[in-house]
Amino acid sequence: MAHSFLRKIFSSKDSFEKQLHNIIGFTPGNTELYKTSLSHRSVKEGSNENNERLEFLGDAVLSAVVADFLFKKYPYKGEGFLTEMRSKMVNRATLNDIAVKMGLKKITLYNKQDNSLKISQIFGNTLEALIGAVYIDLGYKKTKKWIMKTIIMPHMFMDDLEQLEINHKNKLYGWANKNGKALEFETLDERFENGRRLFTVAAVVDGENLAEGKAFNKKDASQIAAQLAVEKLGL
Amino acid sequence: MAHSFLRKIFSSKDSFEKQLHNIIGFTPGNTELYKTSLSHRSVKEGSNENNERLEFLGDAVLSAVVADFLFKKYPYKGEGFLTEMRSKMVNRATLNDIAVKMGLKKITLYNKQDNSLKISQIFGNTLEALIGAVYIDLGYKKTKKWIMKTIIMPHMFMDDLEQLEINHKNKLYGWANKNGKALEFETLDERFENGRRLFTVAAVVDGENLAEGKAFNKKDASQIAAQLAVEKLGL
Repeated sequence: MAHSFLRKIFSSKDSFEKQLHNIIGFTPGNTELYKTSLSHRSVKEGSNENNERLEFLGDAVLSAVVADFLFKKYPYKGEGFLTEMRSKMVNRATLNDIAVKMGLKKITLYNKQDNSLKISQIFGNTLEALIGAVYIDLGYKKTKKWIMKTIIMPHMFMDDLEQLEINHKNKLYGWANKNGKALEFETLDERFENGRRLFTVAAVVDGENLAEGKAFNKKDASQIAAQLAVEKLGL
Repeated sequence: MAHSFLRKIFSSKDSFEKQLHNIIGFTPGNTELYKTSLSHRSVKEGSNENNERLEFLGDAVLSAVVADFLFKKYPYKGEGFLTEMRSKMVNRATLNDIAVKMGLKKITLYNKQDNSLKISQIFGNTLEALIGAVYIDLGYKKTKKWIMKTIIMPHMFMDDLEQLEINHKNKLYGWANKNGKALEFETLDERFENGRRLFTVAAVVDGENLAEGKAFNKKDASQIAAQLAVEKLGL
């Protein structure tokens, strides 16, 4: 598929490499790899030509780096807190925002005529693919440093994220209020698992079970349900 | 909490270190860290004393290592295949089996009197925590080599896992048959997403929607639904 914008961006090699350098902050070892990381499947069908494989890899590397960062930053916090903080840091909306701020929108190659593309996810996915490319290019240790310097430090404010706790529920209540919907959180199940009481809580909108969350206390379970509901509704 | 078996194992320092060495294949830099990785919350309440934080970390590191391994082993396979293979490799049942084979059952510290503990998960979780400890001790690069040598190469047979494709559905049908249940796979939704048709398929048992899977074709979606149903039923 030859799109004119694609030809335009890739015709001047210097210009693409300069733009890429400006975004990642170093000169890549393998330009082709980075081009792949920036190519959405809507312009490249082949699974070894578009960025989905690199996205799979980058997503996993980012998760590990963030887990390491949180494990060391919060030495006395439990696994539940760490999991929650990670999901605040690497959820789709946050990654997409960061990707746009980094300028990835300008160099991501996708079919702009295709209205079915989720513009709220495409750049976040590209950012994950870019992380995958950096990992292949530089290895884990340097990628970790690069993620800290380029993504976490400038874009993720841990004090704010710690406070974000109740926002999913608030957001969902705000939406329900505005749209005249009845929102309830209903405990569906309560059982012992690994020596602890495990709760399943559903976010119920106008009688419909929209999403469910499981956690070892009702507050966390309803937060998770609210977060999933917020994602489902695209709020 | 002082349990007699706990005292017994930890009373002879040599014996614990010898057992640990036999399992991991090297002499650890920090024995305390490894003790933490082997301590279930049923014997250690404190979140910095039991293995849940290390499990969080090790799970992420294992995911990244497996993603890297699959990315390189299958250079022409798409993201869907890689994701599926990873879930076959690192699902709870597989990890628990491997952990038992590695001998982790003998040195994991947990409250054997507590009947609510899920014995089918506890050692797999310990293995993840052990991976977290190895990562803190040796760093990513050496942990990757260690995971390849100790976990993937001796215990994961890629040719077999590739063939495993239809087993979740077969397993669920087998269970349904044996227990006189009616099992159906129902397509709940079909929509365009990112230029592709996305299917939501439910595994329905005796009219009850047990689990749902989403994928870009019905076969994969029903496989995912079957896999989730199998996990839910504890088969």
